[in-house]
Amino acid sequence: MSKSIGIALLGSGIVGEGVLRILDTQSDRFRDRYGIAFDVRHVVVRDPNKKRSFVVDHPVSTDAEKAIDDPSVQVVVELMGGVDRAGALIERALKLGKTVVTANKSLLAARGSELFSLARKHNAAIAFEASCGGGIPIIDALLRGLSANDIRALVGIINGTCNYILTRMTKSGLAYADALKEAQAAGFAEADPTLDVSGRDVAQKLALLAGLAFGSKFAESDMLIEGIDSLDARDIEFARELGYVIKLLAIAERNGKDEISLRVHPTLVHNTDVLAEVSGSFNAISVWGHALGHALFYGRGAGSSPTASAVVSDLISVGIGATKVVFDNLKVFPDTAKPAKLLPRDQIQSRYYLRLTAKDVPGVMARVTDILGKRGISLSAVLQREASEGEFVPVVITTHLAREGAIRQALTELNALEVIQSPTTCLRIIDQPKEFET
Amino acid sequence: MSKSIGIALLGSGIVGEGVLRILDTQSDRFRDRYGIAFDVRHVVVRDPNKKRSFVVDHPVSTDAEKAIDDPSVQVVVELMGGVDRAGALIERALKLGKTVVTANKSLLAARGSELFSLARKHNAAIAFEASCGGGIPIIDALLRGLSANDIRALVGIINGTCNYILTRMTKSGLAYADALKEAQAAGFAEADPTLDVSGRDVAQKLALLAGLAFGSKFAESDMLIEGIDSLDARDIEFARELGYVIKLLAIAERNGKDEISLRVHPTLVHNTDVLAEVSGSFNAISVWGHALGHALFYGRGAGSSPTASAVVSDLISVGIGATKVVFDNLKVFPDTAKPAKLLPRDQIQSRYYLRLTAKDVPGVMARVTDILGKRGISLSAVLQREASEGEFVPVVITTHLAREGAIRQALTELNALEVIQSPTTCLRIIDQPKEFET
Repeated sequence: MSKSIGIALLGSGIVGEGVLRILDTQSDRFRDRYGIAFDVRHVVVRDPNKKRSFVVDHPVSTDAEKAIDDPSVQVVVELMGGVDRAGALIERALKLGKTVVTANKSLLAARGSELFSLARKHNAAIAFEASCGGGIPIIDALLRGLSANDIRALVGIINGTCNYILTRMTKSGLAYADALKEAQAAGFAEADPTLDVSGRDVAQKLALLAGLAFGSKFAESDMLIEGIDSLDARDIEFARELGYVIKLLAIAERNGKDEISLRVHPTLVHNTDVLAEVSGSFNAISVWGHALGHALFYGRGAGSSPTASAVVSDLISVGIGATKVVFDNLKVFPDTAKPAKLLPRDQIQSRYYLRLTAKDVPGVMARVTDILGKRGISLSAVLQREASEGEFVPVVITTHLAREGAIRQALTELNALEVIQSPTTCLRIIDQPKEFET
Repeated sequence: MSKSIGIALLGSGIVGEGVLRILDTQSDRFRDRYGIAFDVRHVVVRDPNKKRSFVVDHPVSTDAEKAIDDPSVQVVVELMGGVDRAGALIERALKLGKTVVTANKSLLAARGSELFSLARKHNAAIAFEASCGGGIPIIDALLRGLSANDIRALVGIINGTCNYILTRMTKSGLAYADALKEAQAAGFAEADPTLDVSGRDVAQKLALLAGLAFGSKFAESDMLIEGIDSLDARDIEFARELGYVIKLLAIAERNGKDEISLRVHPTLVHNTDVLAEVSGSFNAISVWGHALGHALFYGRGAGSSPTASAVVSDLISVGIGATKVVFDNLKVFPDTAKPAKLLPRDQIQSRYYLRLTAKDVPGVMARVTDILGKRGISLSAVLQREASEGEFVPVVITTHLAREGAIRQALTELNALEVIQSPTTCLRIIDQPKEFET
C-alpha cells in the first residue's frame, strides 16, 4: 500500500528537470522504501513548446494558478526563482493549506517571516532544503541532527559560482574577468552574475542558515557584505606566498555575550584548512556546536541533480509527514525566531590582510606601523619585495586580531598619507580553530 | 506551554554524563526552541556511591527494571553497552511501548532485526544516531537528507581509536604497539582494545550504515574484515613514499548488477584525498548518491560531548514526534529491509599494495610478475631499494584493479617461492573517484 502525493511543479528549468528525472526513475524505490507514489499532476512552464526530456510524460501547462488550485495537488514545488511572482503563487498555495517545497533563497530571505507565518495560519508547511548548499542536507542537520547544540559559529563556502571563479584564479592564475568568462562558458555563472559575485546570494543563504542555527531573525542589511568582483589576482598570489588561499566565506559567529555577527567576504583561509581544499562548484559548511565541537558538511552546492536531490528529499519528508512535525514544533523558523542581538559592525574582530601601495622611501614603514599601533593593531607578518628607492611598491601586512572599526579608521589615515597610493586593499583572515586538528 | 518528556537513563559513563550535562545546561533553550522539558526521572548506575558531577540533581538508582517500568518514563536511553543485559532491558522498554534511544552498535548489529520488529509490534520506536560516527548526524542524513538518492557507495573513517593510532604512526613514525599505548594513556583506546583494533567495531557500524543506505540487511559475517593490529610501520612509510596515507576504512559498494560488497580494512588513501586529512579521533563519512554525487560528513566520532550531542538530538526528535514518523514510514530498518545480494568475496575488485620480501637474485621480478600476470593482475608501480646481491629485500608493488580471488591465489603461489620470504603483506588501495575534484 503506497500513499499517493499529488505534485504541482512550478518551473522546469535545470533543477525542475532534475526533479522530474529523479521522480521518474526512482518511483519503484520510493514506493518500496517510503511507501510513497509521487504523482506529478502539473508541470507549469513559461514556454510549453520547448522540447523537454521527461522519462515519462507529465502534463505541461502555463497556468500556475489552475495547477495550484487543483484539489488533487497536495504539494507545490516552486522552482521558478524570483520574488514577486513566486511569492504570490506560494501565498496562494499556502492559503489552500498546501505544503510548499522551494529552493528560493531570495524569496525566503526577503519575505520568510511573512510566508512562514501564513503557512502556520493555514496549517500548511514550507520545506526549503534546496535553498542553501545544493544537495548538502545542511538545513536538516541544523533542524534535527545538531539540535542538541548551542551553536557558536557557522562558516561556509556556499556559492558554487564564486568558488569556481576563485578556484580558477588560484589554480591557473586567471584574472577575475577571465575566470568569470570561463565560468559563464562552463555554465557555472549566469549571464548577469551580479547576485552571485556581489556576495548577495551568499548573504541570503547565510540569513537563512544563521536564522536556523541561532533561532534568530536576520536580514541582509544586518550583514557586512563584500563580493569577489573587485578581487585582484595579485592578492591571491600574495596570499599564496603567505600560506593562504582566498575563499568567499559566509561567517556567522555568536560571542559570549550572545551578540551575533554575520559577514560575507573574500577571506584568507590557511592552506591546511579543509575549507582551502573545497574546489570548483563544491560547497562546504562548518558548524561549531557547544557539544559536538566542529563538524563539516561537504558536497555539490549547485547543479541540476544535486539541487534536485534536496528538493526530492524534502518531498519524501513531506510525504511521510516529517516536514510538518518539524515545521509545527521547532521555534526556529523566520516567523517564530527571536530578534537577534547584533554585534555592532565596528566591534567585529578579525585578523586582516592589507596590501598598501607605498613609496619606497625611508620612514614609510615607521609611519604605517605607527598609525596601526595607535589603534592597538599589531602586525603578524610583512611582505615587501626589493625595489628601487622612490618607486611605489606593494607592501603586504597581516595583523593579529583587530576590530573592524579600528581598521577602518587606520585605513582612512593610511590612504591620506602622501607616501601611500590609495586605495589600500583590505581583506580578512580566518584562523583554523585550535580544536580543529586534535 | 512545553511538553514534559520523562527519561530513564541506563548507564552513566562518560557519554551518560555528557547527556545529563546537555540536558541540565540547555533546558531553557530546549523549552524555547522545541517546546520540550526533559525530565530525567532515573539515572541507573552500577555503583551508586561513585561521585558524579551533575549540574542539577537527578535520582540515581541501581534498579533498571523499576526505572523502565515507571509510568512517568516515556523514553529509555540505553548507554550501558554490551549485548545481553542491554538487550533484555531494551526489550522490556519496547514491550511497554516506550521509545528507546541507544548508542549500542554491537547490540543493533547483532539483534537489530529482532528489536526493531519488537518495537514495531508494540508501537514503539528506536533511535540510534549515536551508534555510528559520534556526533556526526550521518544516520539522519541517510534516513532523510539523502533519501532521494539511490546510494552507490559509502566510504568512511568511523573508528576514532584506530584513526588516532594510525595518525600517530603516520605523523610520528611510532610502531603500532607504542601508538596503542599512547592512545590508551590519552583515553582514546580501552584497556582491552580488541573490538576497535580488530575492525569489528567498524564492521558493526558499517552493517548499520550500509543497511540504511541500501535498505538491506547485513551481518558482520557478510564482510571482509581486517584490523590494524598487524599493521607494520614500514608499510606506512612505503605508502608515504608512494603518495598514500593508510587509514582504516569501512567501504560499502553496490555495482551495476545491484551486488553489494562490504569491507573493513587498512587502506592506502591518496594523500590529496580529503579522507587523508582526517586526523586523530575525528571521523568522516563519504557517500555517493546517484543524484547528489559525492557528499562528505566530518566531525568528532567519539568522546563524551559529541556522542551525547547525537543522543540528545535524538531525544529532541523523539520529543517532537519526528522519530516515530520516520520509524513508522521508512522500510529501511533492519526488520523491514530486504535481504542483500552480496558480491562473492573473490569477485571484489580493488587496487592492491603488496610488500614482498624477496631474495635479490636475477630473475626474481620476472617470476613475480609472471605469477601476477597469469591471473590478469597488472602492475602500477614497483619500489625496490638497492641491496647486496643475494640478500632478502623488501619489494613493494602496487597493482591496477584486480579481483580479491586472483590476488589470493597469486599470494599463495608467491609465498611458496623459495626466493620469497613468507608472508607477503597485502593491503588495498582506494582511488579518489574522478568526479571528486571537478
